[in-house]
Amino acid sequence: MTGVVGLPGTATLAEVGERAVIATLTADLPPATDVLVGPGDDGAVLELAGPLVTSVDVLVENVHFKLGWSDPADIGRKAVAVNVADLEAMGARATAIVLGFSAPPHLQLRWVREFAAGLQAECAAAGVSLVGGDLTRSRDLTFSVTVLGGLDGRAPVLRSGARAGDVVALRGRTGWAAAGLAVLSRGFRSPRAVVEAQRVPQVPYGQGAVAARAGATAMVDVSDGLLADLGHVAVASGVVVELRRDAFEVPEPLQAVSAATGADPYDLLLTGGEDHALAATFPGGAVPEGWRVVGEVRAAAPDEATGVLVDGATWSAAGGFDHFGPAR
Amino acid sequence: MTGVVGLPGTATLAEVGERAVIATLTADLPPATDVLVGPGDDGAVLELAGPLVTSVDVLVENVHFKLGWSDPADIGRKAVAVNVADLEAMGARATAIVLGFSAPPHLQLRWVREFAAGLQAECAAAGVSLVGGDLTRSRDLTFSVTVLGGLDGRAPVLRSGARAGDVVALRGRTGWAAAGLAVLSRGFRSPRAVVEAQRVPQVPYGQGAVAARAGATAMVDVSDGLLADLGHVAVASGVVVELRRDAFEVPEPLQAVSAATGADPYDLLLTGGEDHALAATFPGGAVPEGWRVVGEVRAAAPDEATGVLVDGATWSAAGGFDHFGPAR
Repeated sequence: MTGVVGLPGTATLAEVGERAVIATLTADLPPATDVLVGPGDDGAVLELAGPLVTSVDVLVENVHFKLGWSDPADIGRKAVAVNVADLEAMGARATAIVLGFSAPPHLQLRWVREFAAGLQAECAAAGVSLVGGDLTRSRDLTFSVTVLGGLDGRAPVLRSGARAGDVVALRGRTGWAAAGLAVLSRGFRSPRAVVEAQRVPQVPYGQGAVAARAGATAMVDVSDGLLADLGHVAVASGVVVELRRDAFEVPEPLQAVSAATGADPYDLLLTGGEDHALAATFPGGAVPEGWRVVGEVRAAAPDEATGVLVDGATWSAAGGFDHFGPAR
Repeated sequence: MTGVVGLPGTATLAEVGERAVIATLTADLPPATDVLVGPGDDGAVLELAGPLVTSVDVLVENVHFKLGWSDPADIGRKAVAVNVADLEAMGARATAIVLGFSAPPHLQLRWVREFAAGLQAECAAAGVSLVGGDLTRSRDLTFSVTVLGGLDGRAPVLRSGARAGDVVALRGRTGWAAAGLAVLSRGFRSPRAVVEAQRVPQVPYGQGAVAARAGATAMVDVSDGLLADLGHVAVASGVVVELRRDAFEVPEPLQAVSAATGADPYDLLLTGGEDHALAATFPGGAVPEGWRVVGEVRAAAPDEATGVLVDGATWSAAGGFDHFGPAR
């Protein structure tokens, strides 16, 4: 849109109007070969062969991010990353996103510019294109991202496919974002590595497809915490997942946070969410390079509940995050 | 989920937890043949042949609906209808939606039940399936719906295809929702027909495909008002759209609202949004049955701006709705 570049960053959305906001969000979009119709019409049109895989995640101000803790670019990156992680966990390849952008009228245009820059940077890293969206007023910044992708001829990897005898393996980090949240909540900004992990997850892009090609029987995006998300796999598959604590290494920043806060570092590793690692089960011997084996799958004994055990016992600390309350 | 049916409707989301909310939203989903993986995994998997068409709309409490004006079921219906309308306007057939559901923890479960019932009723009317979603806490109720569909071998109908000599035709209502807003804003609840139109739009499902098959050259979902949305067509197509006021009929409820409020009924018809009629351009003679011809497309004269004229002149009243401000 002509003139958007020249608008002052301090102008509010109320002053510049929604067309300028749309133009800012869609400025300099890189060309995408599989996008037949991009932003600007009633809908986007994509060339997608075979089954389509889709997922949606909503990020809400003061629930998923705080303006005082994260830069706009970080929030834009996070909005893409947490969504693409879901498609990775299906063994799919993400190709496109649509964005619901809700913001208060007093927000400044420069915030949108920085958000858009982060969003596009993460889109580039993840190999996806922004193909459409909706813009609306709201009290709290709220970003809804729906991701779309394909399977390149593979079957989707579900939560329900884990079988007795499989090994459990992990790719990516756990506990880092939770450690970052712990230090930010106490008013600190270091260790910087965990603070950055809280701001933007490091999703192991492409590893979902790697796992699928290697023969993963089940896979999940670790968004709520390893125990909670592997618990979904165990229940959906009707099995028991046995994790071994000594299969994990406590990274140095997590050791530092544990020392400073008194938290059990294994609580961080096992129950910390928001890092968006991938956890998958594989037939023995099929684990891809770079994945860490952290446990096994076995059949439930008669009268034994399906679920996850750590060193043979239920992990006692509170795990996972419930958006509305304590019930689980 | 076992036991959801037995939970009291007066229980809050904080009391029942997010799993009960998910179970409520996905209870009794009808079977859908083209859904390979439905709700409950990291992503949904759909069988979709050929190009995919997608669009997202976000509905925010006190922006798109008010709890005092609409029942939960109405809001659920509206969330589906406004989205499917976008795919209609591409000439596509919608098949699936994903839902971002954001709500405050003090919301009662019965609200979610009624919302889900409305959502599913409109899904059934529109021929779409709920295939996935995300649930999050928020201050204001916020619903993000992304709709997915296909073209059944047709080319998409864009905003940019209108040609000089085409006729402009309309299917569905305009001005009704705006009239409803006018009376609700004044504290009245009648005429009931326009109040209901404000609560839930009557989208002419299937007519987008009818228009595409008939040879529509351009089409748009009338969400912001006929002049504003046909303005998008005129600008994208590089043409002038000429509407004739005498081609419109003022329906009885709009006459009543105009008489009561002093509003020009043609202002309602021409600038009222939120009814989600379809406006399309057709080569002469190709207009499908049930569509009302309301004008023509002509080339812009030298130095004439592209846009929409009514009886040869610019319509003077304010048209359309800007989410952030006055600029347009």
